[in-house]
Amino acid sequence: MTITVGVDIGGTNIQTAAVRSEEVVASLRAPTPLTGARDLRRAIVSAVGETLALAGTDRGALDAVGVAIPGSVDRAAGTVSSAPNLPGFESPNPIALGPAVSQALGGAPVALGNDVSLAVLGEHRRGAGRAYRNLLGVWIGTGVGGGLILDGELHEGRGAAGEIGHTLVEPAGRLCSCGQRGHLEAYAGRGRMEARARELVKKGRRTSLFRLAQKRGKDRVTSSVWLEAVRKEDRIATMLLDEAVWALGIALASAQNLLDLEAIVIGGGLGDRLGPSFLGRLEREIHPQLFSPARPPRLLPTRFKDLSGAVGAVVAAGG
Amino acid sequence: MTITVGVDIGGTNIQTAAVRSEEVVASLRAPTPLTGARDLRRAIVSAVGETLALAGTDRGALDAVGVAIPGSVDRAAGTVSSAPNLPGFESPNPIALGPAVSQALGGAPVALGNDVSLAVLGEHRRGAGRAYRNLLGVWIGTGVGGGLILDGELHEGRGAAGEIGHTLVEPAGRLCSCGQRGHLEAYAGRGRMEARARELVKKGRRTSLFRLAQKRGKDRVTSSVWLEAVRKEDRIATMLLDEAVWALGIALASAQNLLDLEAIVIGGGLGDRLGPSFLGRLEREIHPQLFSPARPPRLLPTRFKDLSGAVGAVVAAGG
Repeated sequence: MTITVGVDIGGTNIQTAAVRSEEVVASLRAPTPLTGARDLRRAIVSAVGETLALAGTDRGALDAVGVAIPGSVDRAAGTVSSAPNLPGFESPNPIALGPAVSQALGGAPVALGNDVSLAVLGEHRRGAGRAYRNLLGVWIGTGVGGGLILDGELHEGRGAAGEIGHTLVEPAGRLCSCGQRGHLEAYAGRGRMEARARELVKKGRRTSLFRLAQKRGKDRVTSSVWLEAVRKEDRIATMLLDEAVWALGIALASAQNLLDLEAIVIGGGLGDRLGPSFLGRLEREIHPQLFSPARPPRLLPTRFKDLSGAVGAVVAAGG
Repeated sequence: MTITVGVDIGGTNIQTAAVRSEEVVASLRAPTPLTGARDLRRAIVSAVGETLALAGTDRGALDAVGVAIPGSVDRAAGTVSSAPNLPGFESPNPIALGPAVSQALGGAPVALGNDVSLAVLGEHRRGAGRAYRNLLGVWIGTGVGGGLILDGELHEGRGAAGEIGHTLVEPAGRLCSCGQRGHLEAYAGRGRMEARARELVKKGRRTSLFRLAQKRGKDRVTSSVWLEAVRKEDRIATMLLDEAVWALGIALASAQNLLDLEAIVIGGGLGDRLGPSFLGRLEREIHPQLFSPARPPRLLPTRFKDLSGAVGAVVAAGG
């Protein structure tokens, strides 16, 4: 029986999933090489081979490969551009990653897609969102990404639809990573939350966030560190997470009022780890702001957690 | 050659349009009877007859009728519910208006739809939005309504999608007509703008708005009165319109960032009258808040003005 492999390229790790008859039969994680396009292509090809071996098979059974990219993708051409976290792909000039991977894999078809769009697609077709035709995926990690499923299909507009992270929640408010002010991501993205914590420390406030990160040998405040600090009732961490919930409440209520969604799936590195109590808080924040409070959206965690993107890449590749 | 008649039911007037080969060949305006469902049905039937006569034809040539309703519609059943501005239709219990009109017109097919949705559909299929597959219509009148065309089709979600008027622009801000706070409609809907002007007068501020309305024999501040007051540099009118532009800038930028639209069509009683300088101001308000500033949406006035709803009703009826 044939097998399809999905490869989700992150700024730090490559995550794969091998799917046979809609079931994940193997997966692996490997570091993302940060040494240019050729090394990334090699790493993808070798991750596909190792995943097939883990699944007890080889390239002969490989049906197709899907690749999820943290950047812009031309699906028809198989090219990647504007992927700021992938060395070699930062520029808006397209690089033909798809054809190169396909050639190295003996001509297997390769489908590319944006990582968050594919993660939402994966959850819609195989995971938490199966029962819904209209849903928004909100991926909370370093930034806040999003993807829209409308009338059962991924809706990308001219390519950039779903960017819930750039909803205005506080006019002229906190600086967002995109350079604008007051966007959701400026309050609920881990990167901007960490930057805000550093600002507060400079102003003389105390927090255990950076000590906890150091203890784990990290130079950044990871999702697990946020959770640990909140559990230990660190005031700054708790306040910043409260602000994130407040900002998410505004942005998600507005999206709901505009789109009349059946469900909102919360994923991403931080989103996946926050758990049911966080979804409950978010629900209580959203509901009083709804135009149709009698028909709120279901708030759901992902089914596949870190594997959502790789599973979505498999779906994009037809598996 | 056959003819299709669209009937747009407003809280004050009924507006019709007769369309033959995609051209509006006749239209009329008549007062909306506020004396119950039966009188409304009669008024629709007589408006259709008079419009056909204006077009130089009669019921023999009538292909179908479309009716745009300021409320909730079950298109398949031809029923109307929750239309607070139509006496006899306020309740959530559905009333079979479509079948009744059809019977009175000798069995001609009758299609019903929500008025703003149909107005946006009309502009998309026959008017300002023809060239675009993804657009948002923003109808600024007593309230702020909206409609979404996504991938070339009207997108209504579970029935309530497109409600851009209930985007949060100022958390815990001004009271909206829906009972929530801080929504776009609370700042840019004519009804709430007038309520705000009255509050300011109570607080001792001066404005010519109510005097100008009285002069025209109106007990409400109509769109023309707003425009006249702004032209005469009335401070309150100018300030409230500035706030409306500010609120629209936030809501439309957020919608754009989420949906990656090609165009935004501004219509409605107030929107249609504000003219190109207002669209220019709105554009300047939106652009600095965009996530993809290199690809802003086109801002467009409607083609059909007050006739958008009736033309959309014709489209819904297959004409």
